[in-house]
Amino acid sequence: MCGLFGIYEHSNAVALTETALKLLQHRGQESVGIASSEHGKISHISGMGMVLDVLTSQKTKQIQGNTSIGHVLYSTSGTSTVQHAQPFVFDSKYGQIALAHNGHLTNATVLREELEKNGAVFQSNSDTEIIVHLLAQSSEKNTIDRFLSVFKKLEGAYSLLALTEDSLIVARDPYGFRPLSMGILDGKTMVSSETCTFLPLGGDFVRDVNPGEMIVINEHGIKISTIKKISKPAYCSFESIYFARPDSLLYGNNVYAVRERLGKYLAQKHPIKADVVIGVPDSALPTALGYAQESNIPYSIGFVRSPDIGRTFIEPNSEIRRNIMPIKLRPIQRNVEGKSVVLVDDSLVRGTTMNVVVNLLKEVGAREVHVRISSPPMIASCHYGIDTLIDDDLIASRCSIDEIMDYIMADSLAYLSTQDMLKALDLEKRSLSYCTACFTGEYPKEAQPDLVNLKCHP
Amino acid sequence: MCGLFGIYEHSNAVALTETALKLLQHRGQESVGIASSEHGKISHISGMGMVLDVLTSQKTKQIQGNTSIGHVLYSTSGTSTVQHAQPFVFDSKYGQIALAHNGHLTNATVLREELEKNGAVFQSNSDTEIIVHLLAQSSEKNTIDRFLSVFKKLEGAYSLLALTEDSLIVARDPYGFRPLSMGILDGKTMVSSETCTFLPLGGDFVRDVNPGEMIVINEHGIKISTIKKISKPAYCSFESIYFARPDSLLYGNNVYAVRERLGKYLAQKHPIKADVVIGVPDSALPTALGYAQESNIPYSIGFVRSPDIGRTFIEPNSEIRRNIMPIKLRPIQRNVEGKSVVLVDDSLVRGTTMNVVVNLLKEVGAREVHVRISSPPMIASCHYGIDTLIDDDLIASRCSIDEIMDYIMADSLAYLSTQDMLKALDLEKRSLSYCTACFTGEYPKEAQPDLVNLKCHP
Amino acid sequence: MCGLFGIYEHSNAVALTETALKLLQHRGQESVGIASSEHGKISHISGMGMVLDVLTSQKTKQIQGNTSIGHVLYSTSGTSTVQHAQPFVFDSKYGQIALAHNGHLTNATVLREELEKNGAVFQSNSDTEIIVHLLAQSSEKNTIDRFLSVFKKLEGAYSLLALTEDSLIVARDPYGFRPLSMGILDGKTMVSSETCTFLPLGGDFVRDVNPGEMIVINEHGIKISTIKKISKPAYCSFESIYFARPDSLLYGNNVYAVRERLGKYLAQKHPIKADVVIGVPDSALPTALGYAQESNIPYSIGFVRSPDIGRTFIEPNSEIRRNIMPIKLRPIQRNVEGKSVVLVDDSLVRGTTMNVVVNLLKEVGAREVHVRISSPPMIASCHYGIDTLIDDDLIASRCSIDEIMDYIMADSLAYLSTQDMLKALDLEKRSLSYCTACFTGEYPKEAQPDLVNLKCHP
Amino acid sequence: MCGLFGIYEHSNAVALTETALKLLQHRGQESVGIASSEHGKISHISGMGMVLDVLTSQKTKQIQGNTSIGHVLYSTSGTSTVQHAQPFVFDSKYGQIALAHNGHLTNATVLREELEKNGAVFQSNSDTEIIVHLLAQSSEKNTIDRFLSVFKKLEGAYSLLALTEDSLIVARDPYGFRPLSMGILDGKTMVSSETCTFLPLGGDFVRDVNPGEMIVINEHGIKISTIKKISKPAYCSFESIYFARPDSLLYGNNVYAVRERLGKYLAQKHPIKADVVIGVPDSALPTALGYAQESNIPYSIGFVRSPDIGRTFIEPNSEIRRNIMPIKLRPIQRNVEGKSVVLVDDSLVRGTTMNVVVNLLKEVGAREVHVRISSPPMIASCHYGIDTLIDDDLIASRCSIDEIMDYIMADSLAYLSTQDMLKALDLEKRSLSYCTACFTGEYPKEAQPDLVNLKCHP
Repeated sequence: MCGLFGIYEHSNAVALTETALKLLQHRGQESVGIASSEHGKISHISGMGMVLDVLTSQKTKQIQGNTSIGHVLYSTSGTSTVQHAQPFVFDSKYGQIALAHNGHLTNATVLREELEKNGAVFQSNSDTEIIVHLLAQSSEKNTIDRFLSVFKKLEGAYSLLALTEDSLIVARDPYGFRPLSMGILDGKTMVSSETCTFLPLGGDFVRDVNPGEMIVINEHGIKISTIKKISKPAYCSFESIYFARPDSLLYGNNVYAVRERLGKYLAQKHPIKADVVIGVPDSALPTALGYAQESNIPYSIGFVRSPDIGRTFIEPNSEIRRNIMPIKLRPIQRNVEGKSVVLVDDSLVRGTTMNVVVNLLKEVGAREVHVRISSPPMIASCHYGIDTLIDDDLIASRCSIDEIMDYIMADSLAYLSTQDMLKALDLEKRSLSYCTACFTGEYPKEAQPDLVNLKCHP
Repeated sequence: MCGLFGIYEHSNAVALTETALKLLQHRGQESVGIASSEHGKISHISGMGMVLDVLTSQKTKQIQGNTSIGHVLYSTSGTSTVQHAQPFVFDSKYGQIALAHNGHLTNATVLREELEKNGAVFQSNSDTEIIVHLLAQSSEKNTIDRFLSVFKKLEGAYSLLALTEDSLIVARDPYGFRPLSMGILDGKTMVSSETCTFLPLGGDFVRDVNPGEMIVINEHGIKISTIKKISKPAYCSFESIYFARPDSLLYGNNVYAVRERLGKYLAQKHPIKADVVIGVPDSALPTALGYAQESNIPYSIGFVRSPDIGRTFIEPNSEIRRNIMPIKLRPIQRNVEGKSVVLVDDSLVRGTTMNVVVNLLKEVGAREVHVRISSPPMIASCHYGIDTLIDDDLIASRCSIDEIMDYIMADSLAYLSTQDMLKALDLEKRSLSYCTACFTGEYPKEAQPDLVNLKCHP
Repeated sequence: MCGLFGIYEHSNAVALTETALKLLQHRGQESVGIASSEHGKISHISGMGMVLDVLTSQKTKQIQGNTSIGHVLYSTSGTSTVQHAQPFVFDSKYGQIALAHNGHLTNATVLREELEKNGAVFQSNSDTEIIVHLLAQSSEKNTIDRFLSVFKKLEGAYSLLALTEDSLIVARDPYGFRPLSMGILDGKTMVSSETCTFLPLGGDFVRDVNPGEMIVINEHGIKISTIKKISKPAYCSFESIYFARPDSLLYGNNVYAVRERLGKYLAQKHPIKADVVIGVPDSALPTALGYAQESNIPYSIGFVRSPDIGRTFIEPNSEIRRNIMPIKLRPIQRNVEGKSVVLVDDSLVRGTTMNVVVNLLKEVGAREVHVRISSPPMIASCHYGIDTLIDDDLIASRCSIDEIMDYIMADSLAYLSTQDMLKALDLEKRSLSYCTACFTGEYPKEAQPDLVNLKCHP
Repeated sequence: MCGLFGIYEHSNAVALTETALKLLQHRGQESVGIASSEHGKISHISGMGMVLDVLTSQKTKQIQGNTSIGHVLYSTSGTSTVQHAQPFVFDSKYGQIALAHNGHLTNATVLREELEKNGAVFQSNSDTEIIVHLLAQSSEKNTIDRFLSVFKKLEGAYSLLALTEDSLIVARDPYGFRPLSMGILDGKTMVSSETCTFLPLGGDFVRDVNPGEMIVINEHGIKISTIKKISKPAYCSFESIYFARPDSLLYGNNVYAVRERLGKYLAQKHPIKADVVIGVPDSALPTALGYAQESNIPYSIGFVRSPDIGRTFIEPNSEIRRNIMPIKLRPIQRNVEGKSVVLVDDSLVRGTTMNVVVNLLKEVGAREVHVRISSPPMIASCHYGIDTLIDDDLIASRCSIDEIMDYIMADSLAYLSTQDMLKALDLEKRSLSYCTACFTGEYPKEAQPDLVNLKCHP
């Protein structure tokens, strides 16, 4: 997943970036880093762990500069190390560059082999390092041309921030898989994976970086170029359903409102006679509330969360996730005992967590548990930056809905159809075009996953 | 505040205690410790910080024994050190003893002076150390008599667990200020500050430790003694309103249900025409939901919490609390913009946090913010273990409701009356008797605060 | 062992104490602490480990005051914990007191039992805590009388610094087992376990604290009292032979000169025809040089030390000591190969280290290794503060010199006699009186070891 | 500086490498790392700090393999970071490679520019990364040819170990600036910066790696190639004088014996009437002993070292070095007071340390201090891997001997001439050829320093 933030020429750039990364912490808790440029010199800091722990005031004092970019890394392999912490900072014939990347290239293997053939050396298995080498091996002298020519070679998903000695460079792949938005603060340009950072810093949202757009900001102003035109973008639908913060605007839609509407559609399409509607906290709560409003079944609070650990989905080691589940999340017996419960969640990946959750409810006396999922069955891996595992680990890729229902021990199970989901996601009926590959197995034409490359993600 | 857990003669005692402390983490995040006895020898471990950080598997291996007690400390002074981490483990003529305490003695100064006169030495300013010395200086040879005689000398609040070389001793002060409950697991007795620990461990709630009860558990069985009879207990009302987990049974009442009813009464007594009801997460959400149900104003989700830091109220340093507030808690603009909002919270202490919260809502466009507090104005310090500051820091002790309303910039402000609160707290109409000293300034007769002793709390 | 330093009313007291503790680091590397008083309030800091690691500038800023005492702890049991770190700081009816102690009481068990009978509570198994309780249980109102009456009750070894709210108190037991000296800096009084601290701080040595002397320094001046008169002091001979720094004056004798003379006597009494004299670094080097000078056998450098770990003798865990020995200390082959070597060391405790050292020399080709020890066979435990193990672990308590020679694989082995050692120790022929209990088994009359109390040392 | 160790196909390779690095710890204390290959897969570990701290048993378990290389880094800039820790492990078209390097290339700037022109990306300013890129950009398919062709391009100093998927590669530059020796253990080949590691591991020294030699060890055996023939090697003289351990054989000479002879020559050429000879510990002690033997002035021990910090010269931050100097090293007053002292040291770089040392002696009463340096005045920067600062920081490059004498406050000062030094260094009169550039300013012809490149060292 990962989160990005950048700000150009603000006197308080480092502190603002640090605060922004805390607001993007839900997008990655494995590592964090900031790079900042001053008088053409880039200093940086990074480390494994949460923003709060890594970016101590003592350490952030080591970096300075008015133009900064920051990154939080979400890693799915258990082997993430400090070598993978971004921004990557490197030196080449074109001077120092810092690079922070969210997404996953689908032609990584091909590019990497080619680069290695030309003598490139890799210190990590990150896609980002591929972009680094493409930039260094480019023969384009002009910065804009060089970045543009490199971006043209990339296939797959990338929202990207780069710091050169004099410019802040912003890019989003032609499909716009991963979000990236621009804001303004004290007249200075900000860029952020989600808009939720802009307001708390005292600034405002301006607009999304368009799919296929490259924006170069330097003392000469803001220059916008086009990487490539694609007929239809492929916005990640899973960001809207689960990943993004509910106080963000995503692809111009209010995330909270989208989730509430997903809940309403779910209630319309998959009604059930029940006593109470609850959601899996916190991401599915707006959806559950939407379901309750539409169905007129009372909404209630189903669970308490213990304050010991981070977001469940985000832990790299699945065994840990399983064991602490019943402590992390506890059912509120009084609200479900003897009742027929509608349990709303946003997605069902492996099914293991849902199995635990349904069991928790039954253990405290829920009479029936009807699971309602505000997205379609997930049957295919994401190759654009969300680690949804290989196909075989996705329960819906190998089990029927009835089998899943049995496995999670639910009394009924229903998913929202792709069509309904897409209707909900396009709140304003602006004919937004989404990537639904993980639900349909149909990947965007020019960003076909490179199936050899399964192990290489950012 | 603090949280306690103990278990007698269970082969998995240390691991169970560790897990229970995670479930009690909301009661204290300053320090944590476990003591365990085996063959009459007590080993222990403690440290500053969260359960997850202090009780690493490597460290808990150092302690062993089938009878264990554990403690999480909530400290309000900025100067808490490892010396204050409990359980206290000490050696005296009666052998090794481990002691874990939740509460605040009102005759601490008197007792301490007397003990010092008799030659006692204090290494901390904790009330718990006073009990340690009383036990050591006692001339009662018999364990039960000794503990009983010591408890008879204590005034104020104490829920307490002690480990001697052969017994687990449980006590609750005659007023029962702080909660303490018993459970059972695999036929073994558990004791816990809150009942929320019993179920996740695989056990069951049995009954509350009665006010004024001392229970000694050892190989001869369970022996119950009475410390003192008080005509009416004085259960802490603030535990029900704010502190306890919603999945606990407190004084026999379901906490969630109590909070929901507080919200309903609040709606009945202080109605307002508004567009939406939201609560301050997470403790006030059930109350807000109750308000919404009763008033028929739609309930909504008002805030997103960032996953970087612990519970707000629990941070010792107020400056830190203030600065990170707007990052920790972010309003969901879409749900409040242009609306008249009922903002429900459980209490109003200093008023500084509420001022920030109301401002956050106004900044994102809330038209009106009507603050509804599910407890009466807090006008007096708690001397029984909740750090509600000295009177002067309590905004309601020096300002009128109108002045507070102005200060927090609310469009209206209403509190629940003491009478209504008490009605809501006694869910089952069992004529429960509560301490309302912080709301009325009237302290229970035989537990008058020792006003000199303001700095000495556990 | 342990090291002490104190300074009265110096504006730079904390930093000076920190530096002094670094110069006393050889006396203890287990824990370190400083207490300092300002306006009658004592603040303190302590931790496990070396001065450099524990007393970071960030931490020492937390303590302030012009009168400071510091302590480095040498612990012999593997179970030393932060509870044992000194100075002990405690509160009693006589106010706050900080206490730092070097030595070992021989009536600790008796005193502790008595104190426990009177209700004392022990949080450690340190002798120092006994003194704490004696002070607190004393009925003497006057500070000087109180400390004096407590010291009168102590038997065994104690060099001690105490900080009360207004005074710095210095005491040395009547036998003077452990060293303690006074110095002056900028007109302010300093006290130190060894004189080696005075000069580097910019001050001067004044005189030793006399055996049986108690010195109270406060705004009224310096008041000297006598604890008890003993006919003959019993200065620790092992301090001169091994423990003290060679740049200290010990009991008025220059430590380096003493060691050199020990070497000379050793050469006179135990001559051998050999090619080279080497010493075990660093403590035995002056002795080896003395041997070489007297014997006219060339002195050489026998070993290189690797810069990875601390002093060998001081590591608590003997297994670690053994394994790293051959890396920590490496023979210089060129200086011993094919040669008959005189290997000088100051003492032989277990014999295990010497066995390794002789083997190292033989492995690189030493033809003969003649071990010369500048002290008599060690046959009895020290009960005055040096951890020389229980008698049975002392190789000389159960083996003849020939057997030891065989065990360590030496070609000859000779010890200095007690008589010769004493002659060498009394450099100036001032009829100094030494404790030789560890060599003779004869303990000073009024400080007979309390044999039950083997496990209770500071 | 830096230290290297490697071992081929030994079942205990990782543990042996770890132990060897402890024995090479004097060559670098900034960072440490080990890489190990198993079944063609390289795992590695590295970190900032001492071997003891970084290579905890827990961490070394993460790496496995029978062929290992290790590195300790000595860094002179204050900005060393974990990015600089070696071995460098990277991936290229030729598979995984680990590289550990001691030395400094004189054509680094040229090579780097060229590589960057070809698209190379640099993540550090280390020479080692240049070699990495040359290997990756090489078009030679065969491993031996590839490494050979890369080494042919390097100018300056490199002793180097590389691990490919199947081979251990060893190389030493044609001048042989930095040492590198081969040993044998259990029939397996070891390589080490110094021979001092071989014996303690239980092995034996075999021979030096010859200047200009590249050795490839794999399952096909040992293959030796020649990088380039140079008429005369240029062995670093400073290694013999100061840096190497006295228990090493350096260029076939016994280091201890060399230093002793340097001291003897110094006594012959620069005699002085004095009372005592002392050396600056530990490196100059053999030299001082040689001076004493030749001059018949008694040798004595001049200083005590405190056990708090590492080797003085090796600390990157000069301010720290200065401040702690008087604590780290303390004079033994008794041995110098009132005396005319010959103070022997191996070199004089900045002069600041010597100024402190002479002052220490004078402060404790030395009547005269005659400084004797067992090397010539150092007037030029080393460009082959020893950080002797830029010329201007070398006191002898801008001051006359008299001026230096005044600055260090010595009563006399004498250096050994280059000629005498070279005579002493060539113990066996084998016409060894040394680099004396730092003393003469004459750099070996084909390894002229690249003067632009002052900031880029390993």
